[in-house]
Amino acid sequence: MSSSSTPPRRGEKSEAAPVKPPMRDALVAAAFQLFLERGYEQTTVDDIVTLAGVGRRSFFRYFPSKEDVVFPDHERCLADVTAFLAAEDGTAEPVRRVCEAVRLVLRMYTENPGFSVQRYRLTKQVPGLRAYELSVVWRYERAFADHLRARLAGQPDGSLRADVIAAAVAAAHNNALRSWLRADGEGDVHTEMDHALGYVQSTLGPAPDGGPAEEPKDVVVVVSRRGAPLWRVVQQIEATLEK
Amino acid sequence: MSSSSTPPRRGEKSEAAPVKPPMRDALVAAAFQLFLERGYEQTTVDDIVTLAGVGRRSFFRYFPSKEDVVFPDHERCLADVTAFLAAEDGTAEPVRRVCEAVRLVLRMYTENPGFSVQRYRLTKQVPGLRAYELSVVWRYERAFADHLRARLAGQPDGSLRADVIAAAVAAAHNNALRSWLRADGEGDVHTEMDHALGYVQSTLGPAPDGGPAEEPKDVVVVVSRRGAPLWRVVQQIEATLEK
Repeated sequence: MSSSSTPPRRGEKSEAAPVKPPMRDALVAAAFQLFLERGYEQTTVDDIVTLAGVGRRSFFRYFPSKEDVVFPDHERCLADVTAFLAAEDGTAEPVRRVCEAVRLVLRMYTENPGFSVQRYRLTKQVPGLRAYELSVVWRYERAFADHLRARLAGQPDGSLRADVIAAAVAAAHNNALRSWLRADGEGDVHTEMDHALGYVQSTLGPAPDGGPAEEPKDVVVVVSRRGAPLWRVVQQIEATLEK
Repeated sequence: MSSSSTPPRRGEKSEAAPVKPPMRDALVAAAFQLFLERGYEQTTVDDIVTLAGVGRRSFFRYFPSKEDVVFPDHERCLADVTAFLAAEDGTAEPVRRVCEAVRLVLRMYTENPGFSVQRYRLTKQVPGLRAYELSVVWRYERAFADHLRARLAGQPDGSLRADVIAAAVAAAHNNALRSWLRADGEGDVHTEMDHALGYVQSTLGPAPDGGPAEEPKDVVVVVSRRGAPLWRVVQQIEATLEK
């Protein structure tokens, strides 16, 4: 791919390359101005390129369809997520790693809160965009599940756990994200996200003192029926401490 | 709705009513014959009604679009799932109840294994159908999450847990279902489903003998740093047992 056909992406560094006209961002801005003024369905690609002052071919160079201009950064983000997971060397705890990967998606939203809130409102109103968003979420979830399936291969229920954990991570992320978007991007979404992903890790991740190579061995947990004689409980504690 | 506009549905009993011509089933059968012979994209609604020997209006009386004929029973099943959850009187354990609800979806697939396997292959080939299926899965997941949100209202993290559990139940169901469909509908999918849903219940449901308001208080959990003196650990156990 020649550099002239590669659009500069939001947040991408290009220190040596000459600064390019931000035509892609201008198209996104023009599109959202029209979507908000006229509605999504009533806006055509011709309307968008006219307002942005470019030709139709420029639009389709950046976006395959009108729907894609609503989610301009997901392809980059999906590539980032996939690369982040692929860069894992096989030592990280898999559930934690996927939780770290989903934070890249959150970062995309928090890079531009105003835009994210606008898009959230638009997506709620237009069924076609909702369907598009579901397909995007599904692609993230597949990336998580593929990574987990590879990491859990050979373990009991590896494929089942991969699918369930991937879905749980996506659902927890979306729960915290939607709550923030509904609040117009106000509040500390990062703390909320820590909490939501912490719930997934504590329920579906390795046991608190069982994760191989994860947890220090300085905590003892004793579970005992209330009816058990105390001497047996103490015996069990001593036996555990001596191990 | 007059009875003449209500199509008989697969598996629906109509003992008193006169038997109606199974036009809806004939349309589904004609559609799948053509999809398999020519491909989904190459088949038009006109082709389907010609083969079934009915008019276009009959098709659209039963199905809003060509996509809907591929998933003829999901609307009924969604209604069944919603009714099943709504009929709950507030005493069932919520995660278990949602796992029971998702078995209604499995039943729809196992009612007609040959048809389900055909559709699975078709859906994998046609991106538009894949998107349609994602939107159907999303509607089941919403039904589960809405039920759980109402049942977990007021509990810590009720909304978060509702979303995560709903997604996990759907993912576990789809994992077992897909495995069966990939095996051409061979094997014991019900046992596989029990196992998959058992995983979700054991990880995200109430603790085996510990859910608040669910289970009696017959378990003591002591967490202690390994460095703590034993007398302090014993003191803590005694204090807890005396409460």
